[in-house]
Amino acid sequence: MIYLDWAATTPPYQEAIDVMADTMKDTYGNPSSAHTPGRRAKQLLNESRGKCAALLNCEPDRLIFTSGGSESNNMMVYSLVKARDKGEIVICGMEHPAAGLPVQNMAKLGAKVKMLNPDRAGIIGPEKLKKAISDKTRMILVMLLNNETGVIQPLEELIAVAREAEKEYGRPIHFHSDMVQALGKIPVDLQRYDVDSASFSAHKFGGPRGIGMLYLKKDREFLFLGGGQERGMRPGTENLASIASMTKALELSLEEDPGKMKVLMDSLLQGITSIPNAEIIPPERVLQRDNYCDFILSLSFPPVPGEVLARVLDEKGYAISTGSACSTNKKSRTAALTVMGFDRRITFSSVRVSIGRDTTAEEIDSFIGTLRETVEELAVI
Amino acid sequence: MIYLDWAATTPPYQEAIDVMADTMKDTYGNPSSAHTPGRRAKQLLNESRGKCAALLNCEPDRLIFTSGGSESNNMMVYSLVKARDKGEIVICGMEHPAAGLPVQNMAKLGAKVKMLNPDRAGIIGPEKLKKAISDKTRMILVMLLNNETGVIQPLEELIAVAREAEKEYGRPIHFHSDMVQALGKIPVDLQRYDVDSASFSAHKFGGPRGIGMLYLKKDREFLFLGGGQERGMRPGTENLASIASMTKALELSLEEDPGKMKVLMDSLLQGITSIPNAEIIPPERVLQRDNYCDFILSLSFPPVPGEVLARVLDEKGYAISTGSACSTNKKSRTAALTVMGFDRRITFSSVRVSIGRDTTAEEIDSFIGTLRETVEELAVI
Repeated sequence: MIYLDWAATTPPYQEAIDVMADTMKDTYGNPSSAHTPGRRAKQLLNESRGKCAALLNCEPDRLIFTSGGSESNNMMVYSLVKARDKGEIVICGMEHPAAGLPVQNMAKLGAKVKMLNPDRAGIIGPEKLKKAISDKTRMILVMLLNNETGVIQPLEELIAVAREAEKEYGRPIHFHSDMVQALGKIPVDLQRYDVDSASFSAHKFGGPRGIGMLYLKKDREFLFLGGGQERGMRPGTENLASIASMTKALELSLEEDPGKMKVLMDSLLQGITSIPNAEIIPPERVLQRDNYCDFILSLSFPPVPGEVLARVLDEKGYAISTGSACSTNKKSRTAALTVMGFDRRITFSSVRVSIGRDTTAEEIDSFIGTLRETVEELAVI
Repeated sequence: MIYLDWAATTPPYQEAIDVMADTMKDTYGNPSSAHTPGRRAKQLLNESRGKCAALLNCEPDRLIFTSGGSESNNMMVYSLVKARDKGEIVICGMEHPAAGLPVQNMAKLGAKVKMLNPDRAGIIGPEKLKKAISDKTRMILVMLLNNETGVIQPLEELIAVAREAEKEYGRPIHFHSDMVQALGKIPVDLQRYDVDSASFSAHKFGGPRGIGMLYLKKDREFLFLGGGQERGMRPGTENLASIASMTKALELSLEEDPGKMKVLMDSLLQGITSIPNAEIIPPERVLQRDNYCDFILSLSFPPVPGEVLARVLDEKGYAISTGSACSTNKKSRTAALTVMGFDRRITFSSVRVSIGRDTTAEEIDSFIGTLRETVEELAVI
């Protein structure tokens, strides 16, 4: 099986698996316990936090360990529940459902929600954000790197707009960015991106499932409470083995050569565009390479249904997906394409190919050959 | 180091560690993906759910995998947030802060909270619950086995009271039980306990951290949303390796001989009561053995401060705790003792000894000897 669905989840690094097993065995104490096994666990917890923070360029106490991206996004959104005046939330129309659905829920709980739809290329323009912000805006959510198309938002410009609006209206606006797909694919520097919070998930960069981080510029009161772990901001006995394993994966993933992925994406783009009827989604990504990451490619061969294409390729030994893996619902799998303005002909036939650290040039060549052959077979039917 | 703090966290079974590492390596697909690696992951997910459900005696689709007990309790409590009329919540005064604090938060969000304090033996009498329920009661929270004292609630009787009240008032009352400490220590049969929901945490029964379950009799709408995993009730890519590892730990923990723990607790009780000034908390547990589990023992040697006793024993190679590990705050560590009516003299000097599958008779003997010697040393100071 040639795995080309690295955006859904990455096979973990062997080193990350080893750290997981070793930590479970050797550092079993509860970091909240005062005794020696507890203090050893606490020390490893602190070391891990320090390493992750250094790699993300923030202070260690600004990172909260969570169960992953979905939790990080949800906890951030629902931190608004206790506010008397829930105000307005501005959210990018391409957000992952783990941000989009809680925000919809907040609308039922009294917040006003404004959707920011990107242009056809998948980009949210700063002017569009500026228009959406008002004196009632409490929170803005824009993901850094989209999981369906690989489009990268001009986050610095968008944050600058929010900071200007803060000055204009004389009140803080919380800028949250889902960086789950970004970390490990493009540089993530929390000094460069002046966000108030950001979400991360280990299994997207070669770490284990069920562990992630929330970066938080300033302490905040969250809804979920318990034993006071993570300085009172995220309850539950610290998942130390997964935290140590994630830390190892983060170190390794940031040591990978980004140039390798560029070469692979070049040959993927070249190969696919040489197949008749291929449509790269959006077409802009062929020429504006810097606006898209080299790991994720959305494409279609209309009218071949994406689901059929993915299924036949699976039978031939290639694992690709039909949009986001995070939903069994086809419509929400291609939500990003829809808000970008693509019609049903494209969304219905779209598939996503995503590559990762173990992907080879030979795998890409082999995939292109089989894809060409499969599209021809299916187009005839 | 002789580890006598198994209630804080258990060293995982080696088999559970192996399942974790093997699953991370071999079954890396995202269970939401339609391709072969995804379907293999889905299959293991279903198998694991089926095994856990069989061991708990419930239907597989009644189990939701979560990040642990704290999340399970929090999500359950906050499922009330969207209700227009939040009504009343009845909660046992000895609940873990992961249930107690969210309930306090619900009071700020419009619910009325009634606390149920246990008697001196740690038991909540059915009559007391009956008095607390009214036609406004929406939810009742009573933990099955207390983490500080090991006291076991008469849950069947308490549930029966709630079911009668439901009939009387003609409206449903949600009965939630935190069974985090119970599972693996006493029989947990979800046909015997007719609860509406229950929380479980793997690291309390020899499984990994960061994974647990919520049993749910009927589907419910929760606050956190995302990719539709766990039939829409708990978002986030399924933490498959941890789920499989937890399943293995649950199987193994339920195969352990409960008789062994009884013998160890016998010798622990006998040894401790033979030391001058020893106070077993509550004293009832010496004679009413069936009301307390054989894994957890709360005790004190007033006026020796519990913190000092635990620290000196740690230096001598014995890891015990001062109440619950789940808080760095001494007061909340001994919250259960306080609501049971013990005064500061006892709570201040209290420590918790908790044993587990690897504890041996030799370890208990060695501990008793050192405890006797240490208490004598400290009492002189």
